[in-house]
Amino acid sequence: MGVSEQPFYVTRGDERIPGILWTPEESVSALPLVILGHGGKSEKRNTASLAMARRFVRRHGMAACAIDAIDHGERGSIVDTGDGPAQPEYIDLWKRSDTFDRMNADWKATLDALLASDRFDPRRVGYWGLSMGTVLGLPFVASEPRVSAAVLGACGLTGPSVIRGRFAERHRADAPRVTCPVLFIVQWDDEIFDRDGALELFDAIGSRDKRMHVHPGKHGAVPLEAVDAMREFLAAQLGGKP
Amino acid sequence: MGVSEQPFYVTRGDERIPGILWTPEESVSALPLVILGHGGKSEKRNTASLAMARRFVRRHGMAACAIDAIDHGERGSIVDTGDGPAQPEYIDLWKRSDTFDRMNADWKATLDALLASDRFDPRRVGYWGLSMGTVLGLPFVASEPRVSAAVLGACGLTGPSVIRGRFAERHRADAPRVTCPVLFIVQWDDEIFDRDGALELFDAIGSRDKRMHVHPGKHGAVPLEAVDAMREFLAAQLGGKP
Repeated sequence: MGVSEQPFYVTRGDERIPGILWTPEESVSALPLVILGHGGKSEKRNTASLAMARRFVRRHGMAACAIDAIDHGERGSIVDTGDGPAQPEYIDLWKRSDTFDRMNADWKATLDALLASDRFDPRRVGYWGLSMGTVLGLPFVASEPRVSAAVLGACGLTGPSVIRGRFAERHRADAPRVTCPVLFIVQWDDEIFDRDGALELFDAIGSRDKRMHVHPGKHGAVPLEAVDAMREFLAAQLGGKP
Repeated sequence: MGVSEQPFYVTRGDERIPGILWTPEESVSALPLVILGHGGKSEKRNTASLAMARRFVRRHGMAACAIDAIDHGERGSIVDTGDGPAQPEYIDLWKRSDTFDRMNADWKATLDALLASDRFDPRRVGYWGLSMGTVLGLPFVASEPRVSAAVLGACGLTGPSVIRGRFAERHRADAPRVTCPVLFIVQWDDEIFDRDGALELFDAIGSRDKRMHVHPGKHGAVPLEAVDAMREFLAAQLGGKP
């Protein structure tokens, strides 16, 4: 199945939110839609998101979309600095008190705009995002009742991450408000979010229908088996083709 | 696909070990074989094992076998006493110093006898057992190089179980000797084996290729999703039909 990739911009007050929509080329109506949240210092069209989006389209006949997070991609200067120190812009992002609420509003505006097209089924919207995709995505999933299934993980309430500062408190408050079916992914040897904090976050998620898959390996080494499980979970929950 | 169910007995010194073998009716040679270890106060043909065995045959074209554990089923008087106190025979089983080594030898003798028939592929032998199926099965998997994939879980190094007494020490020693691919199942609200002890046991397993699936619920409430994952894991590892 061919994959159509279409850039879009959503305007919300002064914000111009850049996004990408992936759909089947021979698109039918009322498609399931997965929102892909990217990791820290990355952007909407990173390799992992692109591969995931294409697989949702090709294998399951679903649609996927992604936007740049605040100060990432087309919206700023944050980039991956490898082993070097984090950029001041990145550290600053986690010091500002409005980061979570702005991001929630960005995703909500994006979802409003896409659903207004009548191409997607509003009862079959999912969210996928690990690491910063959970740091920012968990509050969004907690706040957005139209998200009916979510994949979260590679994140926790404690650990040495520079972005940990202000969000543990927010996550403790928001995790019980996540009530949709959740698959939570843990990297057992994560050097950025520690094990106990990851388990504590899974525990705090309010959904009765939740499960956690744990794999050995560091933060960035999520295995193909987990990638497949995440995709198949959302396809099953949202009624994509098996 | 029709399922053939055949009782058998294996003799090992003074022991007469009762077992059941499940195979496809139109059996070919060199079948993958899964050894099913039953839970405490149960027996070889319990509902869960029977359903699992039939699914291995019907869905994957594989064979399965089970034997009664020491003092269980045809080999003794231990039965499920529900909410009542455990039988003295059951408590005694965990006080005896030879329980693990006897059970290892029983399974080894069973495997020797079955493989001698040339109906099974000795490179495609798996083990499945939760709860007491892990209490006894983990030392067996650690000791038996012919087991090339295992499903373990609903078990841990600590907790209020009456059978905990002597086996934590044995499990601490044997877990690092388990080196085959493992799927480890945890019930997040297990009232018999506590959470920390379950995570500790997963951590101690020596296999580099291991993963843990965690589901909310009590000890006995393993969900269908986990049952499917266990079966599909062994089928994939042992080359059954997908």
